[in-house]
Amino acid sequence: MISIADARARILAGLRPTAAEIVSLPEAWGRVAAAPVVARLSQPPVDVSAMDGYALRAADAQAGNVLHVIGAAPAGHPFAGSLSAGQALRLFTGSVMPAGADTVLLQEDAERRGEHVRVQETMAPGRHIRRAGQDFAAGETVIAPGRRLNARDIGLAAAANHPWLRVHRRPRVAIMATGDEITLPGEAIPAGGIVSSNAHALAALVRAAGGAPMVLPLARDEIGAIGAAVDALDGVDLLVTTGGASVGDHDLVAAGLATRGLDLDFWKIAMRPGKPLMFGRLREAGHGVPLLGLPGNPVSALVCAILFLLPAIARLSGEPGAAAEPETAKLGAPLRANDQRADHLRATLTKDAAGGWVATPFAVQDSAMLRSLAAADALILRPPHAPAQEAGEEVPVIRLGPLGV
Amino acid sequence: MISIADARARILAGLRPTAAEIVSLPEAWGRVAAAPVVARLSQPPVDVSAMDGYALRAADAQAGNVLHVIGAAPAGHPFAGSLSAGQALRLFTGSVMPAGADTVLLQEDAERRGEHVRVQETMAPGRHIRRAGQDFAAGETVIAPGRRLNARDIGLAAAANHPWLRVHRRPRVAIMATGDEITLPGEAIPAGGIVSSNAHALAALVRAAGGAPMVLPLARDEIGAIGAAVDALDGVDLLVTTGGASVGDHDLVAAGLATRGLDLDFWKIAMRPGKPLMFGRLREAGHGVPLLGLPGNPVSALVCAILFLLPAIARLSGEPGAAAEPETAKLGAPLRANDQRADHLRATLTKDAAGGWVATPFAVQDSAMLRSLAAADALILRPPHAPAQEAGEEVPVIRLGPLGV
Repeated sequence: MISIADARARILAGLRPTAAEIVSLPEAWGRVAAAPVVARLSQPPVDVSAMDGYALRAADAQAGNVLHVIGAAPAGHPFAGSLSAGQALRLFTGSVMPAGADTVLLQEDAERRGEHVRVQETMAPGRHIRRAGQDFAAGETVIAPGRRLNARDIGLAAAANHPWLRVHRRPRVAIMATGDEITLPGEAIPAGGIVSSNAHALAALVRAAGGAPMVLPLARDEIGAIGAAVDALDGVDLLVTTGGASVGDHDLVAAGLATRGLDLDFWKIAMRPGKPLMFGRLREAGHGVPLLGLPGNPVSALVCAILFLLPAIARLSGEPGAAAEPETAKLGAPLRANDQRADHLRATLTKDAAGGWVATPFAVQDSAMLRSLAAADALILRPPHAPAQEAGEEVPVIRLGPLGV
Repeated sequence: MISIADARARILAGLRPTAAEIVSLPEAWGRVAAAPVVARLSQPPVDVSAMDGYALRAADAQAGNVLHVIGAAPAGHPFAGSLSAGQALRLFTGSVMPAGADTVLLQEDAERRGEHVRVQETMAPGRHIRRAGQDFAAGETVIAPGRRLNARDIGLAAAANHPWLRVHRRPRVAIMATGDEITLPGEAIPAGGIVSSNAHALAALVRAAGGAPMVLPLARDEIGAIGAAVDALDGVDLLVTTGGASVGDHDLVAAGLATRGLDLDFWKIAMRPGKPLMFGRLREAGHGVPLLGLPGNPVSALVCAILFLLPAIARLSGEPGAAAEPETAKLGAPLRANDQRADHLRATLTKDAAGGWVATPFAVQDSAMLRSLAAADALILRPPHAPAQEAGEEVPVIRLGPLGV
């Protein structure tokens, strides 16, 4: 058995980011930049007013002065002339500062009477001006490659004058659920059968992580069927299987995939739920498709997907790929000492009086109970051999909501 | 001026959830359930084995007993007969328990020899069986309406045998940027002009919140142009404008919209950045389109969108709609006392030695500086009249990354 961190490191080392593609600015949200976004102009391009008011010379900005208003320069309509002593120009937020002026008088500090304005408050030189390039200068990198673009980044790329962006292609993740007992939702269920839930839960997780999921037809528990299913994997960046990674006689995924040249990296991880887990590469599928084999139990499959598949998709997407950042919570109930396997306890989160998180584990943690996983707000992370802990002690937790899973 | 909480409450009170539509299970990720999801079957449907091993009678599960293995029942292939005393049946995780058996012997506690198996460890009656309905029973509501469906919910809905789900339609949010000075990215920029960044940043934010954005053509600073722009709003659930909500002579949005029957709810909020803000309803557009008028400065527009537009989209989407949940961080730098307006300081987040967040505000908080907003990890929330605070004191923060904005 190997540790979770070792397993994740090996998976990440076995994956390469997808190639770049060009998308239009509005399509780039949630994608990962594949090249630096370099400002094509300075922002603001010239000195502009930061407020509604009047442009004037600092020497004239003395309380009591009365100035002649020679015109107005709304944003987008710069003033062509130059300002002289004793003159003022009506400005608005974003208006270009006229030549000859070096200070802005706020409109609430000005008394306008016809063509004249009276200064009510003395202004220091240079006040209320946004200098050219204050936000960014032409030629500066405003977004670094490897960053997943949020709404603010989209605004910044727009302001830097980019209608197109170079981003990593969404990773294509094929998902194969195996087992004679599973059937698709809404289809006739044979005796002893259950409805397949892993494939579509994992497809949703892939979407949440920014990947493009592809759900393969269900594969029966036969070596031939499993091998044949992977013959359509051209262009796939990662194959995810569920089930068949355990030690039972009918866990045939590894045997089926071996018929397509499977190099298997490891088998078991010192964790719960989810001990049986595979990572490898199918030499003879596509141009060598990486394989992540998840357990068949729904909770085990999703917990392993959170720990390993989310970082894998991040890595394929052009990010470094790392474990979800744990937060700290106080235990809402005591925990017994842990054994040699890292544990991931489904828990609800509430807030205590001080605003901190309280994580209360569910009493039953059976890996087939999907409903309690859906009801959980977080996973409590317990390292191997963690000692018994009392309610109120601090534990690391992974919040599930922000991950979209 | 009114408070942020009052403004948000008024906005939410003025919005109704969209109607329901039917989507296929894989399309339902990130959507909000519009009806309870009721289990169509029990999970598991019958008693099944929780492990790989052997079914047997509890009376036979004594260390040293040797039992006759009468067959195997892989998952999906239930055993048709009944188990008698002295007999065992090979089972795998998920296999249906055969009639006559009430206990499962783990395969690691069994020594198999040909057609016989020797019990190595005495098993308590009922061990390693998942009881019918242990996860959920047919007829139980497994997902309540109003829940935004994550990957676990998709798995749960699948397991409950639902190929289709009833969800709220994505709210259609039209975005209108106004101003003579703005132009689209990549287009020729006239003298004194700047590139429009708000509309596409807001469109990305709408997508992040699960809405369907529609960016209207840029509207010039003319009453007629602004009024005409809203004549195409049939079927739109919310109109968002940027700019023109201030007090300058060229802030014409309210005047332009007034030509289409604008009932304005309020004008100003005791907050920074973003004091100028409008909410109302356009009586004569569509069937009465709600209007949220955001400030024109990019930082103000996005901060106001985080505070007001995200909850508005949540409400339209079928959720209750609430402010982003603040977290607690320690200040990385001292703060001066605040004035009468709530403040939202852009800040970086780091972790201290104990794993807690440290929020360090940027020295310059100019509302035109989009780059520092993009570089921020969080907004520090400062209530009106907050006292001066030292580094190390606790403050509430909103983390931006988990919001996708």
